[in-house]
Amino acid sequence: MQYTEEQASILVEALPYIRRYYGKTIVIKYGGAAMVDERLKEGVCQDVVLMHYVGMRPVLVHGGGPEVSEVMRRLGKEPSFVNGLRVTDAETMEIVEMVLAGKTNKSIVGAINRQGGQAVGLSGRDADLIVAEKAEAEVDLGFVGRVRQVNPGILETLAAGGYIPVISTVACGPDGESYNVNADSVAGEMAARLKAEKLILMTDVPGILQDVQDPDSLISAMSADEAMEMVRSGRASRGMIPKIDACVAAVRGGVERAHIIDGRRPRALLMEIFTDTGIGTMITA
Amino acid sequence: MQYTEEQASILVEALPYIRRYYGKTIVIKYGGAAMVDERLKEGVCQDVVLMHYVGMRPVLVHGGGPEVSEVMRRLGKEPSFVNGLRVTDAETMEIVEMVLAGKTNKSIVGAINRQGGQAVGLSGRDADLIVAEKAEAEVDLGFVGRVRQVNPGILETLAAGGYIPVISTVACGPDGESYNVNADSVAGEMAARLKAEKLILMTDVPGILQDVQDPDSLISAMSADEAMEMVRSGRASRGMIPKIDACVAAVRGGVERAHIIDGRRPRALLMEIFTDTGIGTMITA
Amino acid sequence: MQYTEEQASILVEALPYIRRYYGKTIVIKYGGAAMVDERLKEGVCQDVVLMHYVGMRPVLVHGGGPEVSEVMRRLGKEPSFVNGLRVTDAETMEIVEMVLAGKTNKSIVGAINRQGGQAVGLSGRDADLIVAEKAEAEVDLGFVGRVRQVNPGILETLAAGGYIPVISTVACGPDGESYNVNADSVAGEMAARLKAEKLILMTDVPGILQDVQDPDSLISAMSADEAMEMVRSGRASRGMIPKIDACVAAVRGGVERAHIIDGRRPRALLMEIFTDTGIGTMITA
Amino acid sequence: MQYTEEQASILVEALPYIRRYYGKTIVIKYGGAAMVDERLKEGVCQDVVLMHYVGMRPVLVHGGGPEVSEVMRRLGKEPSFVNGLRVTDAETMEIVEMVLAGKTNKSIVGAINRQGGQAVGLSGRDADLIVAEKAEAEVDLGFVGRVRQVNPGILETLAAGGYIPVISTVACGPDGESYNVNADSVAGEMAARLKAEKLILMTDVPGILQDVQDPDSLISAMSADEAMEMVRSGRASRGMIPKIDACVAAVRGGVERAHIIDGRRPRALLMEIFTDTGIGTMITA
Amino acid sequence: MQYTEEQASILVEALPYIRRYYGKTIVIKYGGAAMVDERLKEGVCQDVVLMHYVGMRPVLVHGGGPEVSEVMRRLGKEPSFVNGLRVTDAETMEIVEMVLAGKTNKSIVGAINRQGGQAVGLSGRDADLIVAEKAEAEVDLGFVGRVRQVNPGILETLAAGGYIPVISTVACGPDGESYNVNADSVAGEMAARLKAEKLILMTDVPGILQDVQDPDSLISAMSADEAMEMVRSGRASRGMIPKIDACVAAVRGGVERAHIIDGRRPRALLMEIFTDTGIGTMITA
Amino acid sequence: MQYTEEQASILVEALPYIRRYYGKTIVIKYGGAAMVDERLKEGVCQDVVLMHYVGMRPVLVHGGGPEVSEVMRRLGKEPSFVNGLRVTDAETMEIVEMVLAGKTNKSIVGAINRQGGQAVGLSGRDADLIVAEKAEAEVDLGFVGRVRQVNPGILETLAAGGYIPVISTVACGPDGESYNVNADSVAGEMAARLKAEKLILMTDVPGILQDVQDPDSLISAMSADEAMEMVRSGRASRGMIPKIDACVAAVRGGVERAHIIDGRRPRALLMEIFTDTGIGTMITA
Repeated sequence: MQYTEEQASILVEALPYIRRYYGKTIVIKYGGAAMVDERLKEGVCQDVVLMHYVGMRPVLVHGGGPEVSEVMRRLGKEPSFVNGLRVTDAETMEIVEMVLAGKTNKSIVGAINRQGGQAVGLSGRDADLIVAEKAEAEVDLGFVGRVRQVNPGILETLAAGGYIPVISTVACGPDGESYNVNADSVAGEMAARLKAEKLILMTDVPGILQDVQDPDSLISAMSADEAMEMVRSGRASRGMIPKIDACVAAVRGGVERAHIIDGRRPRALLMEIFTDTGIGTMITA
Repeated sequence: MQYTEEQASILVEALPYIRRYYGKTIVIKYGGAAMVDERLKEGVCQDVVLMHYVGMRPVLVHGGGPEVSEVMRRLGKEPSFVNGLRVTDAETMEIVEMVLAGKTNKSIVGAINRQGGQAVGLSGRDADLIVAEKAEAEVDLGFVGRVRQVNPGILETLAAGGYIPVISTVACGPDGESYNVNADSVAGEMAARLKAEKLILMTDVPGILQDVQDPDSLISAMSADEAMEMVRSGRASRGMIPKIDACVAAVRGGVERAHIIDGRRPRALLMEIFTDTGIGTMITA
Repeated sequence: MQYTEEQASILVEALPYIRRYYGKTIVIKYGGAAMVDERLKEGVCQDVVLMHYVGMRPVLVHGGGPEVSEVMRRLGKEPSFVNGLRVTDAETMEIVEMVLAGKTNKSIVGAINRQGGQAVGLSGRDADLIVAEKAEAEVDLGFVGRVRQVNPGILETLAAGGYIPVISTVACGPDGESYNVNADSVAGEMAARLKAEKLILMTDVPGILQDVQDPDSLISAMSADEAMEMVRSGRASRGMIPKIDACVAAVRGGVERAHIIDGRRPRALLMEIFTDTGIGTMITA
Repeated sequence: MQYTEEQASILVEALPYIRRYYGKTIVIKYGGAAMVDERLKEGVCQDVVLMHYVGMRPVLVHGGGPEVSEVMRRLGKEPSFVNGLRVTDAETMEIVEMVLAGKTNKSIVGAINRQGGQAVGLSGRDADLIVAEKAEAEVDLGFVGRVRQVNPGILETLAAGGYIPVISTVACGPDGESYNVNADSVAGEMAARLKAEKLILMTDVPGILQDVQDPDSLISAMSADEAMEMVRSGRASRGMIPKIDACVAAVRGGVERAHIIDGRRPRALLMEIFTDTGIGTMITA
Repeated sequence: MQYTEEQASILVEALPYIRRYYGKTIVIKYGGAAMVDERLKEGVCQDVVLMHYVGMRPVLVHGGGPEVSEVMRRLGKEPSFVNGLRVTDAETMEIVEMVLAGKTNKSIVGAINRQGGQAVGLSGRDADLIVAEKAEAEVDLGFVGRVRQVNPGILETLAAGGYIPVISTVACGPDGESYNVNADSVAGEMAARLKAEKLILMTDVPGILQDVQDPDSLISAMSADEAMEMVRSGRASRGMIPKIDACVAAVRGGVERAHIIDGRRPRALLMEIFTDTGIGTMITA
Repeated sequence: MQYTEEQASILVEALPYIRRYYGKTIVIKYGGAAMVDERLKEGVCQDVVLMHYVGMRPVLVHGGGPEVSEVMRRLGKEPSFVNGLRVTDAETMEIVEMVLAGKTNKSIVGAINRQGGQAVGLSGRDADLIVAEKAEAEVDLGFVGRVRQVNPGILETLAAGGYIPVISTVACGPDGESYNVNADSVAGEMAARLKAEKLILMTDVPGILQDVQDPDSLISAMSADEAMEMVRSGRASRGMIPKIDACVAAVRGGVERAHIIDGRRPRALLMEIFTDTGIGTMITA
């Protein structure tokens, strides 16, 4: 290719943002359409590699619900959910781990490496990165866990070596068994524990809407208190609740800013980073 | 517990071996019964953690054939082999990766961590650790690969951080696709590339036998030339050929000693390490 | 500002170039219109700071002929030249040093720092960075020197600290006196000594022309031998000769590529870096 | 040799203790029969080298009373004691130093090195490791000192280099003269200053006895307060008092556990380390 | 040369002072006759290089008023002063910077390097070392600044590399413009910021005199309070006031001792350093 | 004290020598009158500490023949010599070690520390620093050894920590027993192994004399060949032969210069170091 002066100028306009995030950790919950659509996925991986090369420290956290359900069905097991949480018996847990750590994770690692990054896939069991305990619930959900501790030592070792960590959200239980943990929640805890500069949750909606029915009612910035009030008052959609919880946990844990953005938009990550106002909804302490 | 004088003396007898292997890399191909039998598996993980704490650098490489076949069958796909190599179409490859990297690998990682180690699971795609190309064969075996390159940078980063690497043998192909590679072969190449002190292949036989029919005809030591001659002359059993190839590749690549040992024996690894004569068959350059 | 998707895409297109030059040293001879025109100057400083933040190691080398002549005239001294070289008596040398090291250099340092870089100005006398001896010539030119040695230790110290070096081309003579040395020549020697990836000479012409009269006859790439032939055959313009010499010295000293580019074009540096074909003329070994 | 499975299992049983003491400092006051009997001495040196190789940081402190008395008598000087403390005139001090630093110390160093360790002998004068002042007493004991300060810098330098320090208890006085200091006391202060995990005093008794007459009345654990009470109440034997003082000083100075063990038992050190209940008497804060 | 025993003894007498200042930072305001007289200048540079080689960390700060005035006159501009401060319009500022950073600074750097040191010249604009704001005054003095901040990072980088920093007192203003700042004041602030062991101001008087008329009334030591009282009471000469201010700022900022010495005496620096009582006047907190 | 200008100037005259030996290792064989006379001894220790503080790396090697003989006689044992070598039975060896490592060595260590250095005493057995084998001789000399190997690792560790090593010449034999080795010879081998800049042997004569009878016939410089010829031709005095051998071994092993100087002269070390022509006799390759 050949850069024109105008194109080169666009690079220069990114400079203030590059300087601001130099050496800073940015935790990205990767999911939704951006993980399914091949073109979007390639774009996200390019964005992440670019972030790495201009001096940021991106940390990717992913779940992979649809792929799990698909493999379950191929194995003759019907997925079932209670309040949005997957009922996870031992056999289901084995499938969850196999799919998240062996399929989704390695597929993302490969896609980043194809863009010239050096990604290393981890599950929460590697080096006891994520420790969970059984989540309390009205009905027994089996191996559904709640994050109790994040041990970020391995992430620091990888960062020092120049590697990009990609984390699948299978956690290690008290007796070494595996637990299925919510990826939004892991991302929020991880961001807090790493004292990340930013948490970015990639979703399939534009952000938090004032009125769920009105896509033009996007709230571009709000405080943690306002976000919690939205949950309490029932104005937040059910799918949005764990995302708001994750953002609030992050900013209350010391993260500057948490963002809920629309991963269906190409280059959503870069548009979020290289901007003053951001896209989607920003939650601050 | 309470050590008696006699028990303490046994520790002291290990001292010459501990000194000899202090800071040295030992590549272990983990497989067979020792990976299936839960008690043997726990024992191997204890042995590996002990090796780590007394100053060695164990690197585990594993395949996981039986588990792959089992999941394939559960998914309604009949495994098929040509000359001992699994015919690996795209769907099979996906299953191989899911099982090896998501199930077998994490299960070993968890077992080591339960013994107090800090294991990190990798597949050959992480940080492009293992690069493969399509293996040539008379019939098209699909995604069966041949190791072309090992990039050990990530292993050095992990060793410096005090982590024990556990490697599943899925490789990264020229266009980023996944390849199924033979675990013995990966272990041999890895040992050579890391200038390991030792390569240890855990099998379900006592070692190389002079006469395949006679379990008492164990050859305790032989040269690479003698081992190759055994293959050429047809005296080596078919299952033994890839193991001999791996050992010969390792010692010709600079590894001091390669061992084929009987993983069905409890504490086989320690019996191999803390001994002058070793168990099983030792191949040297 | 707010990046559009299209603008973000332009960033991503820079990725292959960012990866290629990551951690690499790029020596830039800064001069001509780009140093005089305030808007161009601001642009060059932005480009340099951007290069620094995306992982390159830019080293700036500058002269400052017009400013020297101007101050000389203000001090009542008429500049005089022989074959394009300034006749430099002791008083002139003092003015040269005062202007280059005290005015031009600090002005560039300040401009880079205003863009968010951390520049440190050096003259060739600092830490004996550039050692020169009296240049031989038909007439005595006084303190005009020829580079004899480059001591890059201080540049490595500054690079490790994250500073951008800006070097004015006053050299240290055998008895500690100052010498006026040609900036193109210093840049070429410096690039060779630092095993730089690239040498870029910013000029006020489009590059080397096949026919000096025809601005459309730009040669976009040539070998060192072809460039030298051009000098020998008299087809190179007199102003171009020291530039060709510097490029040839650099590539023969191990630099991959040397470029003569048109500094009058805004964003010339970035257009040169983020491109396959480059702008201006590229000379390779 | 050839390890049996049973023997290998004993190694594995040591793993929890190896993990617990990994990287921890253990100060050992070496003395009594274990320093006189050649077989016991060889055993202690093996134990210390093993401790070093499995990741602990043993620090040996020794006196050498009997050897001093013997050399004194060979030189025609009759040893004399007041309250168990050697009357130390200038000539005696010279003999003490010669024997401890030149004979006992180098003999231990040599014995450790023969077992494959890398020992370095120090006296308290080397790098001003132990600074003493004249001990106050009813009668003038001459150069008998009381520890005033421990300067552990040299121990950290040696530990970083992988060396095992062996310290003879001659201290440096305020004017640079040598002082004879009690080895138990030095070990206690050293352990406190190094924030050691353990202090182990090797003696010629089973530990602290409830009833000095009854060897079966061993107290296996007691608090510092209980131990001090034992001294105050006169129930502790005179020889035991400095040992109790040393243990109490250590645990009050931050050491987890102090132990008085029976050095006449072969492998006493390992039996103490690789055990839950320990041998001898343990004193804790 | 050939050292006699007596000469060698003088070296040894320096030992206590060498030990005391080993690894310590000493900020020297260089100025007055010692900067003008060529023999004195050579002597100061030798002293500084000696200080460096015996383990101290000298930092030189210099102004250069007379040279500035001289160049101004050569350019047809009459210097003018208000209350001892130079009226500094934009053109004057340009001359100040050119002379200080391009002539005086490089001349000192060259003189140190001729003595075997490795000096690096800096102005306050390099790496934003000195940040100033416009000084408030009754009449507008133009670009006369007051030090607001010292960023010593570059000094630490240079010290780690074994370089001797030489700093000209041009500061960086809020909008990147240059400011003329008082060298005494910079030296005082720099010493405080670097937690220097000593600040030494080289002047053309013996020190602070009890009676300005009586050169024999030198005060050899005084407290910061006493010095301030001297200023308030009008007993300090006008030229001495900024020097007293600098000393007081330094010692109140944590510097052990500040000295006003007579730079007209050869070897004044060494006589100050290698002495108990010092020469000139010492101010302490 | 108070330095005069003249005294300060003497410091400055040392500067070229300080620069030349900065960071260089200088091995000093300390012995003769300089070790016996208390005032000379204090002087040598001051010189060594000064050398350390001005950046050199002095390494002291010492024997202690007269003290050994004196202690032997006090113990009722008559010293006996064959060809200048002490007949060393087991009991004598024990006395040699006790005196050298426990008395002479610690006395030197203490004297250096009193001057403000941080000395650490070593014998050749510490960290196997000096390995010897039985010296061959016409009559059995017992434990008289010949240096076979020097393991300088511990010296590098100590140098990195800022410690001054003081080495007594007791070596470690093949089976761990102690050997009495010649101190000149150890110093020569040590200098060669450390690639020292200088070896200095302190003796009780002015140097090598052309005519042993004529103290004015000092040879100030000679080549290794000339020195060896002097030995072969019988013109070297018997006491001088091991010293010449040590110097020749050093310079042939890569040491720049070896010196035989008169330790009876106060400040002999500094007079040797801070001089062009040196004192005594210099031997070069």
